[in-house]
Amino acid sequence: MKVTVIGLGPGGGQDLTGRARAALECCDLIVGYTAYIDLVKPEFPHKEVLSTGMRREVDRCRAAVEAALTGRDVAVVCSGDAGVYGMAGLIYEVAQEYDPIEIEVVPGITAACGGAALLGAPLTHDFAVISLSDLLTPWEKIEQRLRAAAQADFVICLYNPASKSRPDYLARACGILLRHKSPDTVCGTVRNVGRAGEESAILTLGQLRDTPVDMFTTVFVGNSQTKVIGGKMVTPRGYLQRGE
Amino acid sequence: MKVTVIGLGPGGGQDLTGRARAALECCDLIVGYTAYIDLVKPEFPHKEVLSTGMRREVDRCRAAVEAALTGRDVAVVCSGDAGVYGMAGLIYEVAQEYDPIEIEVVPGITAACGGAALLGAPLTHDFAVISLSDLLTPWEKIEQRLRAAAQADFVICLYNPASKSRPDYLARACGILLRHKSPDTVCGTVRNVGRAGEESAILTLGQLRDTPVDMFTTVFVGNSQTKVIGGKMVTPRGYLQRGE
Repeated sequence: MKVTVIGLGPGGGQDLTGRARAALECCDLIVGYTAYIDLVKPEFPHKEVLSTGMRREVDRCRAAVEAALTGRDVAVVCSGDAGVYGMAGLIYEVAQEYDPIEIEVVPGITAACGGAALLGAPLTHDFAVISLSDLLTPWEKIEQRLRAAAQADFVICLYNPASKSRPDYLARACGILLRHKSPDTVCGTVRNVGRAGEESAILTLGQLRDTPVDMFTTVFVGNSQTKVIGGKMVTPRGYLQRGE
Repeated sequence: MKVTVIGLGPGGGQDLTGRARAALECCDLIVGYTAYIDLVKPEFPHKEVLSTGMRREVDRCRAAVEAALTGRDVAVVCSGDAGVYGMAGLIYEVAQEYDPIEIEVVPGITAACGGAALLGAPLTHDFAVISLSDLLTPWEKIEQRLRAAAQADFVICLYNPASKSRPDYLARACGILLRHKSPDTVCGTVRNVGRAGEESAILTLGQLRDTPVDMFTTVFVGNSQTKVIGGKMVTPRGYLQRGE
């Protein structure tokens, strides 16, 4: 009689928290997008699962809530965090339409933190997280946020930087950022964090504009202080600069 | 001969990932701020520890690097994530001054994600993370970022919203946000996430301005779409609004 929305971290497995693992062990049914079910299925082979394809988010959440109403403990799994562009919000919205059920959210390592760890330490200062997907958000709004984040010198982390139907969105975003930021700004890309084929690269904002990426990539754009140290992307917090 | 910078999540224990736990099990020495050492010491009682007080960040990182140079595997522990306002960046900066050592960063659940899970799902859309501490950042820069985040309708997560020497900083920040956002904007506070005394509250931006908080609090300010559903703070991503 409960839905637990669980963030699996970037790749499941070692990235799972103890709380997430315990919730998966206790549940009766695991609901999620097919690719995320695949991340946990090997570790919980005997659990019943209900997987749905991309863009079936509302159906998936309704199925989870309806299963909970039959008295089952349902785990809804998300890649990364349960909240950051995840299903937690939609579960709360959908559940309003039914009799009350218990809802719990178990956080996970979001791609911003998982990718940052691979690149070094880009998020040591104030940062903004922006999705470049305009499926649910008008592009004008995305542009406005890119401009604001660049002008205020946030480190910027871009989710969904491209897809097959939006191959040029990262280049468009870089064009906007370059109006306010140096082309030498240190940037990084990570791909398949915590999964097979994990890779990362450090490059300049000028280079990033001309770099093709896909939907498995997360992009980091440094602030004006971000630098490369020993091949890693590092944003100083200011401890050394302060002196101690 | 290695430093691993580990994010413990909000409270250690159940919030630790498998990767973080394995790194702690393997290390020879745990280095960290006293309060964070206390989060892991009960689970790793036989590990040697080196704890230092607040504001000794540079000394702490130097000690970790120097211990690694004597051939030891050193874990540097941070509350939340290893990178987000954590020690990962400083370790890279400090290590430059010594012979090369291996450095690895193990991400953890940052307060934005841990706190969001407790409040509901405030971070389901683009968000900005801003620290209100002006120990290392000029207040003018913080103000600029608050203005930019408010104008572009980011959800905003505030770290270090107050301390004994800065009791009024959250009120000042709210004053800036209120120039661009409605006083009815849905906000949330969380305190001691994952630890004894965990608590959360949902309130309006107008109320938040007059609410005293402390250094154990993380603050969430919704975007224009954030709402309260069943006592939880929820920012819609737009799935239901799109129709499906």
